[in-house]
Amino acid sequence: MNKELLFKNIQTKKSYLCVGLDSDRSKIPSHLLKYKDPVFEFNKEIIDATNKYCVAYKINTAFYEAHGAKGWDTLEKTHKYIPEDIFTIADAKRGDIGNTSKQYALAFFQHLDFDAITVTPYMGKDSVVPFLGFENKWVILLALTSNAGSEDFQFITEEGSSRKLFEIVLEKSQQWSNSSQMMYVVGATKASELKKIRRIVPDHFLLIPGVGTQGGSLQEVSRNGLNDQCGLLVNASRSIIYASTDKEFARMAAKKAEVLQSEMSNLLDQYL
Amino acid sequence: MNKELLFKNIQTKKSYLCVGLDSDRSKIPSHLLKYKDPVFEFNKEIIDATNKYCVAYKINTAFYEAHGAKGWDTLEKTHKYIPEDIFTIADAKRGDIGNTSKQYALAFFQHLDFDAITVTPYMGKDSVVPFLGFENKWVILLALTSNAGSEDFQFITEEGSSRKLFEIVLEKSQQWSNSSQMMYVVGATKASELKKIRRIVPDHFLLIPGVGTQGGSLQEVSRNGLNDQCGLLVNASRSIIYASTDKEFARMAAKKAEVLQSEMSNLLDQYL
Repeated sequence: MNKELLFKNIQTKKSYLCVGLDSDRSKIPSHLLKYKDPVFEFNKEIIDATNKYCVAYKINTAFYEAHGAKGWDTLEKTHKYIPEDIFTIADAKRGDIGNTSKQYALAFFQHLDFDAITVTPYMGKDSVVPFLGFENKWVILLALTSNAGSEDFQFITEEGSSRKLFEIVLEKSQQWSNSSQMMYVVGATKASELKKIRRIVPDHFLLIPGVGTQGGSLQEVSRNGLNDQCGLLVNASRSIIYASTDKEFARMAAKKAEVLQSEMSNLLDQYL
Repeated sequence: MNKELLFKNIQTKKSYLCVGLDSDRSKIPSHLLKYKDPVFEFNKEIIDATNKYCVAYKINTAFYEAHGAKGWDTLEKTHKYIPEDIFTIADAKRGDIGNTSKQYALAFFQHLDFDAITVTPYMGKDSVVPFLGFENKWVILLALTSNAGSEDFQFITEEGSSRKLFEIVLEKSQQWSNSSQMMYVVGATKASELKKIRRIVPDHFLLIPGVGTQGGSLQEVSRNGLNDQCGLLVNASRSIIYASTDKEFARMAAKKAEVLQSEMSNLLDQYL
């Protein structure tokens, strides 16, 4: 999916919500366990109930890998089930030497057909570039993450330039591609940094995890992060998909998604 | 596997060779393509031929993921096929927020039964710690990688301390665990930095990729990196497993592995 179509979908749905399918077999409603593939049943119901409120789904590969080949089968079926017009993100945080990153790119862009994959920047340019050779496919590079451990390395200040590591990642990686093929992960819990980040990457989409269970504020993130093409995908995972653990789970997930979508609709009217 | 047993195996085999199973379906001998799972046939023959020369196998997950659920099935079968007394490394370079890293840990340490997994440090402590809660299981944290892109961020110098990012990773992560559960990735192409790294982590095992196709020198790495418990696992992947593409590929792989093992035997005699 290209940037224009993504923005068009955002305008049509008045939403920049991404629903995270961090679907954990031990947390899904127990009545689903009778199915052959309970997580797939869970995902199907969640997707059916929430797709009108969101423009993207983010599949967190860890929750599928935990079940090995069977989990990967669930991941593949889930990805296929997502409606064609919705942006799909493999939240995989991959990245390795060039010939290996190429294989990861083939896994997520060719074998599967995700629109985007999250990539970790530690190994630098030649670990990221192999993901950029696919038309209308996106790299979402980790810049500033939502977790406490982000303080350990991402805030290291460079001698001479006084830039933090995450700022260097944002600046340097812009030499590798542009805002039509690269996005950045910026945690909602770091909303105060968003203004600064917007100055460094005015045109890029930012994937913002951390709203919901992790405590980030949608209002603050949107005020500091929205640009004239929206420029945000705000993800919520657990707060939506685990809104309830009874048979009404999908309806409750839809309700939670609708609340966020409605808030986003207002924010778009206000800031765009 | 614990550190004592790993060192014992190194002494017995006079080897600190790790063979990397970066098995790419498009590069394996064509006569294997008649099998239902050609990559598994390839891996079996490579393992049969090389296991007496090495103390570890490193499975690069990317090459399996590229084939989706089927590839994961090949990965699982390959891991099971590796003899019990050999250290197994999932070269997966994972790392995410805590509840996600926990799922990756379950994938590689519980669903599969790898001895170790490579982990990327960018997201800090709480992305690494979930991998440390498993007895006799290891985190191999990326410190200084073998690729050109390592220059982009790993060599950033911190204001005030004048330490490079990779040095900070080495120092800070020692607060999270010890040399009985953590190793570090240090590329063989960065052998000149190894002396400095040995001073920061005198007791830790280092996993050294980059000997072979990437051009690192086993002699130099060993001179600068060996400690009194060996402390090195030197990996070669492509130079061994693709030594030949004809029916003799396994015998040729064994020959390449034997040359390295023999050199390692001499180096152990010289430096230990």
